[in-house]
Amino acid sequence: MTGRWVDDDNASLVTDLYEITMAAAFHAAGAFETATFDLFVRSLPGPRRFLIAAGLDDALVFLERFRFAGASLDYLASLAMFAPDFLEYLAAMRFQGEVRAPAEGEIVFANEPLLSVTAPLPQAQLVETFLLNCIGFQTMIASKAARIAIATGPDRSFVDFSPRRDHGADAALKAARAAVIGGAAATSLALAGRLYGLEVSGTMAHSFVMRFEEEADAFRHFARTFPGDAVLLIDTYDTEEGARVAAAVATELAPEGITIRGVRIDSGDLARLSRSVRRILDDAGHPEVAVFASGDLDEHRIAGMVAAGCPVDAFGVGTRLGTSADAPYLGVVYKLVEAAGRPVMKLSSGKATLPGRKQVWRGEDHDVIGLAGEDLAGRPLLDEVMVGGTRARPAEPIGTMTARRAAGVAALPERLRTLTGTEEPWPVRVSPDLAALRDRLTTELE
Amino acid sequence: MTGRWVDDDNASLVTDLYEITMAAAFHAAGAFETATFDLFVRSLPGPRRFLIAAGLDDALVFLERFRFAGASLDYLASLAMFAPDFLEYLAAMRFQGEVRAPAEGEIVFANEPLLSVTAPLPQAQLVETFLLNCIGFQTMIASKAARIAIATGPDRSFVDFSPRRDHGADAALKAARAAVIGGAAATSLALAGRLYGLEVSGTMAHSFVMRFEEEADAFRHFARTFPGDAVLLIDTYDTEEGARVAAAVATELAPEGITIRGVRIDSGDLARLSRSVRRILDDAGHPEVAVFASGDLDEHRIAGMVAAGCPVDAFGVGTRLGTSADAPYLGVVYKLVEAAGRPVMKLSSGKATLPGRKQVWRGEDHDVIGLAGEDLAGRPLLDEVMVGGTRARPAEPIGTMTARRAAGVAALPERLRTLTGTEEPWPVRVSPDLAALRDRLTTELE
Repeated sequence: MTGRWVDDDNASLVTDLYEITMAAAFHAAGAFETATFDLFVRSLPGPRRFLIAAGLDDALVFLERFRFAGASLDYLASLAMFAPDFLEYLAAMRFQGEVRAPAEGEIVFANEPLLSVTAPLPQAQLVETFLLNCIGFQTMIASKAARIAIATGPDRSFVDFSPRRDHGADAALKAARAAVIGGAAATSLALAGRLYGLEVSGTMAHSFVMRFEEEADAFRHFARTFPGDAVLLIDTYDTEEGARVAAAVATELAPEGITIRGVRIDSGDLARLSRSVRRILDDAGHPEVAVFASGDLDEHRIAGMVAAGCPVDAFGVGTRLGTSADAPYLGVVYKLVEAAGRPVMKLSSGKATLPGRKQVWRGEDHDVIGLAGEDLAGRPLLDEVMVGGTRARPAEPIGTMTARRAAGVAALPERLRTLTGTEEPWPVRVSPDLAALRDRLTTELE
Repeated sequence: MTGRWVDDDNASLVTDLYEITMAAAFHAAGAFETATFDLFVRSLPGPRRFLIAAGLDDALVFLERFRFAGASLDYLASLAMFAPDFLEYLAAMRFQGEVRAPAEGEIVFANEPLLSVTAPLPQAQLVETFLLNCIGFQTMIASKAARIAIATGPDRSFVDFSPRRDHGADAALKAARAAVIGGAAATSLALAGRLYGLEVSGTMAHSFVMRFEEEADAFRHFARTFPGDAVLLIDTYDTEEGARVAAAVATELAPEGITIRGVRIDSGDLARLSRSVRRILDDAGHPEVAVFASGDLDEHRIAGMVAAGCPVDAFGVGTRLGTSADAPYLGVVYKLVEAAGRPVMKLSSGKATLPGRKQVWRGEDHDVIGLAGEDLAGRPLLDEVMVGGTRARPAEPIGTMTARRAAGVAALPERLRTLTGTEEPWPVRVSPDLAALRDRLTTELE
């Protein structure tokens, strides 16, 4: 039986069919010249004032391994759409292009390339769909996570609890990675621990409590199984009573050397309950037991609780993080900007593009998008990460990306670190040379 | 180098860590008794008045292959959280439970099980996260697609164009499957054609047109590569001029026996442009060339164009279908309803559950949720699809699911086939026996 998973052997078919039909027509037309495509967003979604670049390393792994193997080629042949010489061309194809991109964890704004691919035209075209999916999704999640990190502030942390509500299994894995780049301290997804080396975190569900006749029995069993590491879920029946039971179990097990790491509240008025639960634990002599909160949280609810001084040590954020619920897609596009050394652009209504191979320079208080050959002031963001289909440097540790995001967000003007999205955006200018090129091509096309 | 894909060998780690910590505590407590969990939603999201069940077959494949294999077990051991005898228990574990569910394509309402799992408690617990993810995502997408199918009506069709905006690669694959169950005629995702046998569809992008000096050259090359099957994208520069060019190319190539299947409009005022483009094609003697529309479409925009009589033959729907953008998550939960033959429920604020193993009976104008042993009027929806970890019947063709959805939607009262969500919902009652059980347990718990 056929598997139902994406893998290295079939990932080249994670593509809109039209990439393949276009490649076939390019092949038939002898259009093998070098082309450059930019991947970017035209505007920032929802109240966002910046994006956090993410997904590059998975994109590079995809490009390194890109090929049309046996069963995928057989499938394409079975469609009876493609000429045999084109299928042979696909069978021999490896990605041989150049990739330039900002590092993961870097702050990026609208119209700035999240990725720039220069390769023989059919190759560059065939990888479009996957690259949009990969970079777009992880950038969306890292950007959402960065907002949540702003909300929690430096004294509290949050954990990705999203796997059950993410869109499929790969989304759960990639959301965990992107959430950590964006600021999550850990993820609940075990596979993200195994494949990406992320910190994993997990406690118990209501079903565990419900299995025992008495809540106290559930807590005792769990604490004995994980001495020193148990976080007890206290809202299955009554949250405040649950806190008293947890405190009693902590007292009862202390002589055995067992400590309770924390309690979790997952329903009700989290702000009010966090205070009463904290008081119950303290009054029972357990200031060491932390309070965790989860349940329908997002950056706004967390910011409200933090501003109110709620005694919550860490937050579990699931659905609204893993689906970027207030803005569940990023309008990433992948546009031809140069073909055979000739800068190009399109004029479709509302969708005009900036032509040519680009660089972005970050200044103290603005960015400039210019042409790759220009020498402008500021720090250039796009780096050559793949040359001739081979990585230009080893993969970065995810911790490096996390630190880059933290430093980048901290360096933003205060107004961009609020969550309302009503503030003056970061200025992104177009260099005089790029503006002149755009105007010349616009005139020619019209 | 480690792969970054979910596969049969690591899918058991597509789980919140807490499922494994709970299983470890159950194991330590000797809690191996049979338990039943129901997977359902508490309410319907957004303006939805019904859901379309989907994802069951992928869930059954997961359960059939469920195991903790080498590298996954090594990873869990490396966490230094789990006792060796528990890891041995995991190594030997296969899913041996029973699964009851409505068939894919069936209409389902709030509080009705989308899946019911009966298995030894640790097994039933360990599969929670994956089942929620799998059933929740596909049901969300099939339900969104069914709304789009209502909007297009029987005389027009739509195609899933979502892969680039779906949340990761697995989401693209599963969204395509669920979209077809919900009513899409085809998908643009090539891999969904290969792995699920779905109809695939694809045309060209703006980059193809931009590569050639003249739009007409691009159209000629494409039509010669795909004689009889080319759909030409006409909005790269100017849509109406593009329509004239397409018509001229159709006339020019006709003597070679080449026909143009259609033109696609992807930007601008689709309603207005569809009329002018249709007129241009007709005036040029090409009534056989179809008009396709795409770009930021959803059920509401399509319904508006259909109501206005716009001459669009088929729609491409991407982002808003594949992310279910107006309601990008489904609040699926997986709740313990019976343990060791004893019905259970929880009382958490706003999250109370119905206890016991259930059946749902569909009547002419209402549903009844009752206990599995009851004999009530109507058609029972939950069927035994897995027994002892083995499928009770072969997998259904996706076409059967699609037909079931179409018949189910057609049989709904007219008021539920509107898209506004303001109408009286379908009545879902609780049987007297189930209500009595719920009331008795509530009293006992309080």
